[in-house]
Amino acid sequence: MSVITIERKVLEKNDEVAAQNRTLFKKHGLFTINLVSSPGSGKTSILERTLKHFGGKLRISVIEGDVQTSLDAERVGKFDVPVVQIVTNGACHLEAKLVQDAISKMNLNSVQLLFIENVGNLVCPAAYDLGEDMKVVIASTTEGDDKPLKYPRMFINASVLLINKIDLLPYLNCDISVLKTNALQINPSLDIMEISCTTGEGIAGWCNWLESKVISKK
Amino acid sequence: MSVITIERKVLEKNDEVAAQNRTLFKKHGLFTINLVSSPGSGKTSILERTLKHFGGKLRISVIEGDVQTSLDAERVGKFDVPVVQIVTNGACHLEAKLVQDAISKMNLNSVQLLFIENVGNLVCPAAYDLGEDMKVVIASTTEGDDKPLKYPRMFINASVLLINKIDLLPYLNCDISVLKTNALQINPSLDIMEISCTTGEGIAGWCNWLESKVISKK
Repeated sequence: MSVITIERKVLEKNDEVAAQNRTLFKKHGLFTINLVSSPGSGKTSILERTLKHFGGKLRISVIEGDVQTSLDAERVGKFDVPVVQIVTNGACHLEAKLVQDAISKMNLNSVQLLFIENVGNLVCPAAYDLGEDMKVVIASTTEGDDKPLKYPRMFINASVLLINKIDLLPYLNCDISVLKTNALQINPSLDIMEISCTTGEGIAGWCNWLESKVISKK
Repeated sequence: MSVITIERKVLEKNDEVAAQNRTLFKKHGLFTINLVSSPGSGKTSILERTLKHFGGKLRISVIEGDVQTSLDAERVGKFDVPVVQIVTNGACHLEAKLVQDAISKMNLNSVQLLFIENVGNLVCPAAYDLGEDMKVVIASTTEGDDKPLKYPRMFINASVLLINKIDLLPYLNCDISVLKTNALQINPSLDIMEISCTTGEGIAGWCNWLESKVISKK
């Protein structure tokens, strides 16, 4: 019982800091996405495609969360945008305090769109509010069509589902209509977009949607 | 600090129960594998291929660990082997006590090889000993070649790396030699096997290795 009590305190404390982050984001009028998925679903590849698409047209910054290494920050940094790397040193998710520390290193006045790339983990990050406007969950076609049923909390807490790697569908035993049905069964209000970071299919639609969100924040 | 202390107690208690499980497994002379990976890397598909290969030649039992649903137990159960499903109800990993509860429902006298399929998560299950002989980690080619560097603890704690979905390599930006180099950099004593559950490539080699482990337990 003591563990449960402390876990609740950890989450309550996290929610307090997340609320502070949210107030700060609102003050600066920026749109913030908490990008979540399994390892290898394509979070960093989607950021690369997104940054390439906008090419400086939107002022974007990125917070990278990883258990180890700054490999993702190096990939994203090539697009000449401000990046802060958080290395969790073994922890399985980002917490609001880590994000608060990261944004203290950023000039938020110059940011319109902030991506927070979470640790690759379809379970634990679902429980931690970081102060974001919304969670965007990525499911890649290679993971199969049953993941929303098996890891429901992440799909319940997300506003958007990006189905990535649709170029691989011809080679997979994954029925994308079943994947969508399963996702909407778990969360009927999910917006779903299909993309491929390899071919670029669907990236323009995703970026147009992002732009509309940024504009609505003004 | 209090959280860290309790986390340590949780792990100490887990290790005690894991040791009890290990003693029980040894007494019954069975070989036990803790199967770990990201969601969608192919843990259940590998079990299906393995059970099909042996076709009753080895006496195999399976413990399925999932956050939600008994979908995996239903898939494995079609092969007419004893299966116990553990639903963690949100928890991100299996613990030794859950496995202890599961094996209390099994007749271990009739088992030679026990698979424990962990929750799909490349971070948290690395910290929890279940009493297994070894962890086998699966990395699918679709996840890219950098995962051992980004999620090192799982690869440090595993004895075998199964590289799955090698049939998809022609369509991916994944260099399998880089993946192997990264894995061996993290853990030089890893045994590495390449497989495809779609084509069956490498499955016979994997099963021969399993059989040799079971025989060595006699």
